[in-house]
Amino acid sequence: MFQKLTIFGPGLLGGSLGMAARQRKLAQHVTVWARRPEAVSEAVKRGAADDGTLKADEAVRDADFVVLATTIGAMEKIAREIAPHLKPGVLVTDVGSVKYPVVISLEHALKAAAKFVGSHPMAGSEEAGIGAAAADLFEGAVCIVTPTEETDRDALMKVAQFWEAVGMKVRTLAPSVHDEMVGRVSHLPHVLAAALMNYVCRQGREPMEYCGNGFRDTTRIAAGPAEMWEEICMVNRDELRRAVDGLIDELSLARQMLENKDEIGLLAFLRRAKNLREELKDRQ
Amino acid sequence: MFQKLTIFGPGLLGGSLGMAARQRKLAQHVTVWARRPEAVSEAVKRGAADDGTLKADEAVRDADFVVLATTIGAMEKIAREIAPHLKPGVLVTDVGSVKYPVVISLEHALKAAAKFVGSHPMAGSEEAGIGAAAADLFEGAVCIVTPTEETDRDALMKVAQFWEAVGMKVRTLAPSVHDEMVGRVSHLPHVLAAALMNYVCRQGREPMEYCGNGFRDTTRIAAGPAEMWEEICMVNRDELRRAVDGLIDELSLARQMLENKDEIGLLAFLRRAKNLREELKDRQ
Repeated sequence: MFQKLTIFGPGLLGGSLGMAARQRKLAQHVTVWARRPEAVSEAVKRGAADDGTLKADEAVRDADFVVLATTIGAMEKIAREIAPHLKPGVLVTDVGSVKYPVVISLEHALKAAAKFVGSHPMAGSEEAGIGAAAADLFEGAVCIVTPTEETDRDALMKVAQFWEAVGMKVRTLAPSVHDEMVGRVSHLPHVLAAALMNYVCRQGREPMEYCGNGFRDTTRIAAGPAEMWEEICMVNRDELRRAVDGLIDELSLARQMLENKDEIGLLAFLRRAKNLREELKDRQ
Repeated sequence: MFQKLTIFGPGLLGGSLGMAARQRKLAQHVTVWARRPEAVSEAVKRGAADDGTLKADEAVRDADFVVLATTIGAMEKIAREIAPHLKPGVLVTDVGSVKYPVVISLEHALKAAAKFVGSHPMAGSEEAGIGAAAADLFEGAVCIVTPTEETDRDALMKVAQFWEAVGMKVRTLAPSVHDEMVGRVSHLPHVLAAALMNYVCRQGREPMEYCGNGFRDTTRIAAGPAEMWEEICMVNRDELRRAVDGLIDELSLARQMLENKDEIGLLAFLRRAKNLREELKDRQ
């Protein structure tokens, strides 16, 4: 598909992407850029790249596909740095979990220097770093691509095909619609899992003695990298706040049913959730 | 350990218990009681019992250990029905997920007819019924036994040993302390998972297209049997309401940090949750 793929940030996503692209021969050459030399050599050692560099301009030399897989906050700076060194017509995408502000700033930073398409591969786990990376990380998961009026249609097709080629199901949403949707189905569950964990252990560790599989599943994602999630939550704070409000409303409803001993209401509430969750399971 | 074990209600827990007791030879004979003849024959067919009956008095004849594994609401009636037919000195326990009201009513119903000890084996899954039963269901899970001032100490020891013999880690709590604890670590996550599922699909199924593993884990238990959970939540409604209030407070805290753009506060909130969740993982 590509001559040279350059990945910025060989962490869980970037590292897995390099592994997948090399295994599936989606690029003849994979280069990584990282801030630390150990990160570069680790990526090469683990088979996530053919080679790597600490120099952004060198990393993108002759690349026809560039993926920004760093933290959201670092992306704009990298985009500005590489813009003058990009091959004409190069395709650039990112893997950020928030899209509206990221897409706006990257479109602006890259301007005419590249064809940019925003992506959000919804893969990963509570683990972080290249140590948890795997070529099959993307298999069966959803990738949301987020075109705007600026987006080149051929570039959009090519990026979508790339995500499909690593095993993902591609969906398209406008950046702001993405942020609202993902605020609910991804960022909200994270805040919720963290809130539950913190609440239950507010007065000490004793409750851990009594935590079964249900609690473990419900809180699993709270073990994810705190810095990364803090950034995601803050960047998507308006949508996330609305989602937290919506969930508090839903919880208050259940609380009121308990208060009123409304057995029929509570049963309907639990049945609706059960039916929805079973429908979700069947879609897997 | 026992001559004859009688299990009332061969569902997920009762059926698994029969299988475990027979496999580990904890009783020379296992009898089940069920409301429907098909449930009895299914239990015998699946190896959860040697035989079974629809008659409660017949079921407990010569039994030296009786386990009530029906829904909470059916337990008191069964206890009253079997009390006159129990062998002197027989040990009786239950597997109810709420303990204070259940223990009070069973102690009263069984009075001098049996040595009663309340139990809550925290095993199970979102599945229900004997179809999901397995001899190893209890392996490594926690069982809370809930003695009161009325509880015979030898009986308590024997019941604890029985749960250990099926692979459980036994903990002791007073019934009311159990209800507060379990309201937080088990009933609250259930309501939370249901609320999240309902909120996200409030306006339709579209969000299901974008649900990743994080959402799936956080909501998994919402697929559990609605009738059973409605009963549990209502019976433990006071503790559960307090727990929902506590969680709403915790969520409001996170919400306020988003509103105030309090990055340091949110990072501390997420870090605390991450550290706690990792500590919980290490305890597994």
